[in-house]
Amino acid sequence: MAAYKPYKKDFPFSYTLGIFPTLELLTAQPQLAEHVFISQKTKSGQGLAAIRKLCTQHNVPLQEVEHAMLQRLAHNENCFAIGVFTKTDATLDAKKSHVVLVNPDDMGNLGTIMRTMLGFGVQDLAIITPAADVFDPKTIRASMGALFKLRIAHFTSFDDYAAQFASHHFYPFVLHGSQKLAATTFAKPASLIFGNEGAGLPDSFAKIGTTITIEQTDQIDSLNLALSVGVALYHHFANGVE
Amino acid sequence: MAAYKPYKKDFPFSYTLGIFPTLELLTAQPQLAEHVFISQKTKSGQGLAAIRKLCTQHNVPLQEVEHAMLQRLAHNENCFAIGVFTKTDATLDAKKSHVVLVNPDDMGNLGTIMRTMLGFGVQDLAIITPAADVFDPKTIRASMGALFKLRIAHFTSFDDYAAQFASHHFYPFVLHGSQKLAATTFAKPASLIFGNEGAGLPDSFAKIGTTITIEQTDQIDSLNLALSVGVALYHHFANGVE
Repeated sequence: MAAYKPYKKDFPFSYTLGIFPTLELLTAQPQLAEHVFISQKTKSGQGLAAIRKLCTQHNVPLQEVEHAMLQRLAHNENCFAIGVFTKTDATLDAKKSHVVLVNPDDMGNLGTIMRTMLGFGVQDLAIITPAADVFDPKTIRASMGALFKLRIAHFTSFDDYAAQFASHHFYPFVLHGSQKLAATTFAKPASLIFGNEGAGLPDSFAKIGTTITIEQTDQIDSLNLALSVGVALYHHFANGVE
Repeated sequence: MAAYKPYKKDFPFSYTLGIFPTLELLTAQPQLAEHVFISQKTKSGQGLAAIRKLCTQHNVPLQEVEHAMLQRLAHNENCFAIGVFTKTDATLDAKKSHVVLVNPDDMGNLGTIMRTMLGFGVQDLAIITPAADVFDPKTIRASMGALFKLRIAHFTSFDDYAAQFASHHFYPFVLHGSQKLAATTFAKPASLIFGNEGAGLPDSFAKIGTTITIEQTDQIDSLNLALSVGVALYHHFANGVE
């Protein structure tokens, strides 16, 4: 375990810091788990028992280590289990609706969006880079494990994404779109496309697909990104899942 | 200025930390502003010019102080302006819809909810205590100044609130409600009632008004509180504002 250092974005692997996200990893994506470390400090607890069982079941190496070693990777927070997993892109499902985030900046927002996607039945997430790190332990924590239940893929440009999913119906969310969300029935599979927290989508998106605006007062500049995605996903879900 | 200490919940006043929230205070609620301090480090900038003008206009004492004194109140973050304002409850508008938060725990959530309320046209917020501090500078920052554009009042129990607004239509948001959100047309004025981030609403709310559930998959335990409030407010807004 001493070989592992606190997480950095360029590592080919990342960590689940804590019992809950480690369980989510072992339950949803055991094939990605390289190693699990648990603290010598506590041997009891349902969570740890479940981790032991899943590691045995899926042949994931499990090792008890000094509590301080876990704390070192967890930035000194109390932490009783850490999973090491391979970072890997998924293949998005061409028949399902996607969320497309163009250059998202904030790991907390990313995590919240992932959890909300699961809640509203959209499991495919395209990230257009540069972007905040979806694999950072902070994002994983904010997602409450949702990361391991989604298909997530990165693209270096929106054009790359669009070329690969040309039969999707594109809906860029902008401040002055051609259609109000409430009046929209999404053609499916849909791509719900959102810009960066501060800058929104570039102007070039005005000519792509059908631009949508979430009705709002003029009292605020714009809604929080996670909120916008949530409201759009709710509407997509209430429209009926594809 | 040396008399002011870093914010604590029991102070009768609070601070706007930074140029943007200080401008929001002076624009929306100048009568609450007791004092404004600006840094000797920068004298230029549109924001500072606007602060000077508003202080003159509303007779708010303005003082230039050493940068380090502002940093001390701002927990060592860079900060060029601080407003000191009186904490006070508003009287909620009995004819308008309200958001009612029962024991909210998280200041970030509170701030996001305030901003979202403004965006979806509900300006009255009832907080049932104990609750996170709406006046904490962290909440103000998360609200992006929305705090000063809302009417916010605290109640020590939901019964107190309900007695005062007996003619409101109560809609507690719960996991297994009698009605789905998409099928709901809110009778107005409505009280949209939400529980604590972790615990949700107590069971006793099952017998109050019309319980509402936001449709969601069984893939997550529950939506994030700010997300739930946002989706409900969007639906309330899209229904037509009262």
